[in-house]
This record gives sequence, C-alpha cells and structure tokens, in this order.
Amino acid sequence: MTTSFPRFTFVLVWLLAAALTLTRGQTRPTEAVDLLVRGGTVVTMDAQRRVIPNGFVAVRGSQIVAVGDTADAGRYRAKTVIEAGGKAVLPGLINAHTHVPMTLFRGLADDLLLQEWLTKFIFPAEAKNVSRDMVRAGTRLACLELIRGGTTCFVDMYYFEGDIAEVTEAAGLRAILGQTIIDFPVPDALTPQMGIAQAERFIQKYRSGHPLITPAVAPHAPYTCAPETLAACRKLADQYGVPLVIHLAEADTETQTILERYGKRPVAHVEQVGVFGPRTIAAHVVQVQANEYAILKKHNVGVAHCPQSNMKLAAGVAPIPDLLAAGLAIGLGTDGAASNNDLDLFEEMDTAAKLHKVTHRDPTLVPALKALEMATIEGARAVHLADRIGSLEVGKLADFIVVDISTPRQLPNYNLYSTLVYATKSSDVETVVVHGKLLMRDRRMLTLDEASIRRETAAFRARILESLKK
Amino acid sequence: MTTSFPRFTFVLVWLLAAALTLTRGQTRPTEAVDLLVRGGTVVTMDAQRRVIPNGFVAVRGSQIVAVGDTADAGRYRAKTVIEAGGKAVLPGLINAHTHVPMTLFRGLADDLLLQEWLTKFIFPAEAKNVSRDMVRAGTRLACLELIRGGTTCFVDMYYFEGDIAEVTEAAGLRAILGQTIIDFPVPDALTPQMGIAQAERFIQKYRSGHPLITPAVAPHAPYTCAPETLAACRKLADQYGVPLVIHLAEADTETQTILERYGKRPVAHVEQVGVFGPRTIAAHVVQVQANEYAILKKHNVGVAHCPQSNMKLAAGVAPIPDLLAAGLAIGLGTDGAASNNDLDLFEEMDTAAKLHKVTHRDPTLVPALKALEMATIEGARAVHLADRIGSLEVGKLADFIVVDISTPRQLPNYNLYSTLVYATKSSDVETVVVHGKLLMRDRRMLTLDEASIRRETAAFRARILESLKK
Ligand SMILES: [Zn+2]
Ligand SMILES: [Zn+2]
Repeated sequence: MTTSFPRFTFVLVWLLAAALTLTRGQTRPTEAVDLLVRGGTVVTMDAQRRVIPNGFVAVRGSQIVAVGDTADAGRYRAKTVIEAGGKAVLPGLINAHTHVPMTLFRGLADDLLLQEWLTKFIFPAEAKNVSRDMVRAGTRLACLELIRGGTTCFVDMYYFEGDIAEVTEAAGLRAILGQTIIDFPVPDALTPQMGIAQAERFIQKYRSGHPLITPAVAPHAPYTCAPETLAACRKLADQYGVPLVIHLAEADTETQTILERYGKRPVAHVEQVGVFGPRTIAAHVVQVQANEYAILKKHNVGVAHCPQSNMKLAAGVAPIPDLLAAGLAIGLGTDGAASNNDLDLFEEMDTAAKLHKVTHRDPTLVPALKALEMATIEGARAVHLADRIGSLEVGKLADFIVVDISTPRQLPNYNLYSTLVYATKSSDVETVVVHGKLLMRDRRMLTLDEASIRRETAAFRARILESLKK
Repeated sequence: MTTSFPRFTFVLVWLLAAALTLTRGQTRPTEAVDLLVRGGTVVTMDAQRRVIPNGFVAVRGSQIVAVGDTADAGRYRAKTVIEAGGKAVLPGLINAHTHVPMTLFRGLADDLLLQEWLTKFIFPAEAKNVSRDMVRAGTRLACLELIRGGTTCFVDMYYFEGDIAEVTEAAGLRAILGQTIIDFPVPDALTPQMGIAQAERFIQKYRSGHPLITPAVAPHAPYTCAPETLAACRKLADQYGVPLVIHLAEADTETQTILERYGKRPVAHVEQVGVFGPRTIAAHVVQVQANEYAILKKHNVGVAHCPQSNMKLAAGVAPIPDLLAAGLAIGLGTDGAASNNDLDLFEEMDTAAKLHKVTHRDPTLVPALKALEMATIEGARAVHLADRIGSLEVGKLADFIVVDISTPRQLPNYNLYSTLVYATKSSDVETVVVHGKLLMRDRRMLTLDEASIRRETAAFRARILESLKK
C-alpha cells in the first residue's frame, strides 16, 4: 500500500496533465502542414468578420486547413513557420480592375483632358509600342508592384493576355485575364473577329482549372464595341463558362454617345444587346441611375469601383452607397497605372472610405470595415471567386498577406479596421502568400528579379520616348 | 632654344588646363561649407521652377549658400556630404494645419457623425487626458511621423503650446505654434481670458527670432469664440507681430450657426469682428462663396487646404481652383491625426490633385506641379514664411528632403512632378534637413528615439482607453 499509493497518484496526475494539455492543444505536433503563420492578429473576413488577436493560419498545399488561436497551433508541424507577432494577417487584396502592362506608361501624360490624353498620348503610345515583349515587361513591373503592395489577385484587360498569363503565373499571382476585344485595329488583332479568335485560343489554353489563371473575354466598352461585337463576346464567354470583363458607364461622354447611337443609356443598352450574363465584371459604373441598379443586380454583375482613376480622369463619383444598398457586390480597382498612377489598394481603400463621405456629406458612409471588405471578401464576390478567395477560412485557397501594424504612424492602434484603412500603407506589407506559395517574405522578393525588371523598364522607357518623337 | 620651347609649351598647357579647370569649376575645394548634397535631381521650386538634373545644394550654418550643377560643386569643401544620385532633392514639405498631440487619438473614433464624434469621443477624450505630459508625448509621436514623411515645417493649434514648442525644438522641426483660445474651459485655461494670458506668456518667450519656433495665437473658430474673444486674439497678434491661426468656414453647420448668431456668413463675420490682419492663416475655408474670395485676398489670408480631413469628416470640397484664380496663397494641411488619420503630405498632394478634378469634372485642374507648389513654396506663402522657406535658393533656410524616385512603383519616370505627386509615398523620403541640421539620414532618426516614443505611446493608449470607461 505504501508504494502503490504514490504510484497511483503519479499516474493520476500524469493523466490529468495529459488531458489538460490535449484540451489546450499543447500536444506534440502531429499534423503535417506546409506553412504555418502564427502569433498575428488574424483578420478572417469570414461571415462573422472574426478577428483573432493571437491567431494562426495553417496551409497544406494551396489550401487553408486551419484558422484559430495560436494556443491551438501546437498540433501543426510545418515546413515553414512565419512568426507574425505584432502584425496583421489579412486575406490578400483583390484588384478588381487594371491593365497591368500600362505601368510602362505611368506618368507619360497627366492632367490632360480625356480626349487629348487618349488620342494624343495613350493611343499613339499603344499603337507604336504594344508588343508581346512590351506587354511582358509591363506585366513584370506591375507584378512587382502588386506583390509589394499586398495584392494577390487582379482582374486585367489588355492585349496579348496569353503573354500576361505566362508572366503572371511565373510571378505566382492569381488573376482573371480578359483578352480585350475592340472595333478598331489593335496590336494583336486587326479586327474584332480576329480578337475573338485570339481570345478563344487563349481561353482554350487556360480554361481547364488552371491553379492561378482564369481566362476571360473583355469587350473594351459599349462605345468602342458595336452591338455585334458585344454579343459575340457574350457568346464566347457562355460557350466556355468564363467571365466577361467590360468598362461600363465610366464618363458622361460615354452616356451621350450611347444615347445618340442606340437611344438608350449604357446599362440598358448593354443589357439589351445581351452582354450581361454569368460572371460579368463591370469596371467604373459611375454614370448609373437608380433604375439601373436593379438591372445590374438581376444579372449579378460585379462592380469594380476605381475611385482614384475616376477622380484623376474626372469621370465622376460612382454611387457606391446606393449600389451597396441595392445589394451589388463591389470590389476596388486601381485601373491602369497611366490613370492613377499606381497599383496601390491601400490607397484605394482610404480614398473609397473618404470619397463617398464627402460626396454625400455623410461621414458614416463606407466605414473602414466596408472599405476593407471591398478589397477582400466583397471584391472576391465582385469577381465571382468568393468560393475560393477573399477570406481566411478552412477550405479556401491560401492567399494572404502579413502586414506591419506597429509603425509609429499607425500607433496607437485603437481600432484595427481604422488602422488598416486609414493609417496603413502599401509599404507596410511584409509577406505575401498566394496559392500557398511565398511570393515575398519580409519584403524580399522570391519570384521576381527586381534588378532585371529595372533594366527592362529603363530600356522600354527609352523606346517609348523615342517612338513618340516620330 | 631647344630647352626653352618645351618649357614654354609646358607653361602654356598648364595655363590652359588651369583655365579650363577653373571655368568648369574643377578647382581644388576652397569654400568651406557645412553640408553638401550632390548628384540628385534638385527641384528648386524657385520663381523659374528650375529643375537641375544633376544638381547640388550647399549649406553653411542654417542657410543655403549655393544651388547649381554638380559639375560646379567641386569648389565646396563640406564637413558632411550626402550623395543623392537617383534621388530628388526637394524643399521640405510644409503642413499648414495640424494638431500634433492628437496623434494619440488616431483611430479612437471614426466614421461617425461630426457631432457624435466631437461630443462623445474627442471632447471627452481631450477633457480627461490632455495634460502637459500627454501633449509632449503626442508631439513626439507626431514629430517622428512628420520627419519620416518629409515634413520640415508645420502649423499647429492646440493646448500647452509651450510644451509642444520644447518637444518640436528638440526634434529639430520648424513650426508655427498657435496657442488655442476657446470660450469653454479647456485643460490649460478655464476662460478665454486665461487662454489669452497663457498665449501672451508663450509669445513673449519665443517672439524674438527663435530659429525654429514662430509663436502664434489661435482662436479656435468663429463658432467657439465670441466676437470679443476673436478681437482680443487679433489685438494680441498685432501687439507682438505674430501670426493668427483659425479654423474658418469648415462645415455647413458652422455657416448656419454664424448666420443665426450674427446675421453674416463666417468670412464676413470674422472680417467685421476684425480677426483678419497681417499673417492670418485660415484652415479649411470650404464653405466660401465667390464674393468672399476678395475679402480673404484683401487681408492676405493664407489658406490651409485639408482635403483628406474635409473628405473624412464630410465637410465638403473647398473651392481651390477658384481660390487659386483669386490669387490666394494655398497650402496643404493634414489636420489632426484623429480626422485623417495620418500626417502624410504626399497623400494630401495626391488627393488634392485628384479631388478638384472630379469635383469640377475637369482633369486639367490642380496639375501635379500645382499640388507640389501647395506643399512647398505656395504653402510657405500661405503660412507667411515664403521669404525664408519653401524653395531651394541661395539665402533661404536649409530645409530640404532627399526622396527616392527609383522604387519600382515610381518607374518609368517620364515626368518628375507626376512621379512626385502621383507615385511617390512618404516611405520614399530618405533624408531630412531642417535649418541646416540632419534630422533623418537614410531613414535613420537622428533627433528622436523611436523605442522610447513607442513605450510612451503604449502607456498613453492604455490611459486614454481607461479614461473613456469612466
Ligand atoms: Zn480601365
Ligand atoms: Zn483642425
């Protein structure tokens, strides 16, 4: 008895301790994962908008397999561990509208009337310079900027999208890439029919579940595409089940033109022609009226709101609070670097939150959380990928960023959403993961070579300047 | 002859070489200076808006003694040399309106109606927390952010400006500091009379040519100061020849209140009371009409335009293109960090350039150069210091910044002003000089201890949160 009592006590204590450890998750690591981010404030953007102050995200392959308190992360044995203490872990930002190769035209011509800007600078610069090589160089420069600024997915429309796709894939970014269709001759198609054929070849190449690239067809705009062109684009999109990307209702001049030509305003015209359908993404949507919101909603059109581009080109202010009230999914886009002049979604969030307040003289509109939603989960809805990205949840793809929230200009941090939208800058993004793969770690680029991108950019700068002298 | 000919040739060649060297400035350094910045693109903002692609700035003591081509910099022997190849050298940015201690309230309450924001959060937080210690801590945090973002001079209005002055001087920044006068009891004065007395003591201490600090009197606003208070402030300003700083015509509610109380709109009311006079700096100036521009011009009132604050608090859009056309001097201000939420003049420039374009549907308004002017030479005019700062010219004080213009998101650089306003961020500021003294070099702080500022900020954050629970 004298010996069995202590032994019994020992066993009991051991069992209790083991049980306690198990319930607290402090067991030995048993589950193998590829990547574990822990110790950060995890901003899930899930349905409950859960924020986990000391949280973790575990990734296996391309997917998120667990999200929770870091106290429960002990069971995961990870090949790569990222310590995120003092940082925020966010879903990667989604740029819902851009033209990535146009980074090479950044600052080429600013502060001009729209027609002058387009006809004297942008169109000539494009006609003389857009080539497969130029598109690849511009895309590389853009991917560098996008990754460094925390963007993990973008929606593009330009020429030579097949080349854009290859560069984007090499950079490791996710993208919806829309081959542009337009009625005048462009560098990769002399006619819209050739453009459609080009788009079809591109779609065929990427349609079957590519991990990063979603191919799309992109009729440029109702004022640059005849009704037949628009209808052909929708037919192609339906045939392959891909998204359709379009500029829509951007400027007053567009409304005038469409009214004169077709007797309808842009949204109604485009509906009548049959452009709307599954997975439509419309950029700008500035010049819309109350009776048109229902049309957009009926067709589940995703809206890419581009506040800084709309301001700089003086297009107007999109009625975002009304579109939100109408239940539309709204994402944020930078538009091309020639009209912004950057690809910075932190600035778009800040601007979106402020612009609608002043426009409607109501400081409660588009609060910080709403702006962050537009750049993440609502942006994912707008680009029709909300089942795969936009939030940090088990089963979603591992697209996320680690952001410093403790620089002096972010302190004191009273409200995380305010800090992220009103006081965080793209330079605070430290680490970027897309599809489970590290693209940037502690601001070190892992998939792109900055030095060679600089050289390539300098060479194209010289060529573009030379071309405009002729 | 055989020996004298070579000797003569030698002398001739030597003389020729010496002459050539002299004309090219490649002589041995003879002029002693304290600081030489060379090899950068010098953006002078002088009357000709000269930009020197490979330029230098030489500083002796607190003054600029030479500006020119780096080829001519060889004559200067400097104690400190800053190589600025690939960078831009700009006049330091001027923040024409802020409340530096309010950094400690950054993000405390956002996206609220103005009255709720003020009465439920800001005023109680101030009543419970504003003290000499709090003001000092908030000023230190603000100075850290200001220096890191390239601001070299700011106009403040708050309480305990004597403490703000000491911290600002220690940080090495230039400032116009206005002791706030207001009709209700505040932490440093129970009555406006006490406030005036406090302001007078502060002015007496700093008025006689302090190198960095210009003392001022700051009646809060026409709706918070009775006519007698406003008149007493002007009297004090005139007595000591110091600037008068005031919030003016910010919101619709102010216009209503002033109309009801005095039968005049704010600008006319303030003129009648006699507030305007030499060196008046008015913040916001949003709710003004065409007939009021001439009143402001007549009194040479400097305007501090705060686009981001006006947007976030939904005050409205100041009629800047009209005010510019009326010949008024307009600077840019961030306002306090509680209403912005940062002290970032690069963002204010970008926003100012874009906001007026969209408001007036004219993309040619407020071009990039105009936005940069507002943050530099025109800002200096607005705060009545254009004879001393705002441009890089011989005889001006040496307040300048060295800014990286070659990050990937700034490339390709076609137009320097576009690059600076539309694509440069505060994080690109590398080196900051005020009054000839280095405050930051290659992003290393030289006058402030970031670690202790972080600790201090964390302590005040906890105190402020605790105070609001009561
Ligand atoms: Zn676009
Ligand atoms: Zn203010």
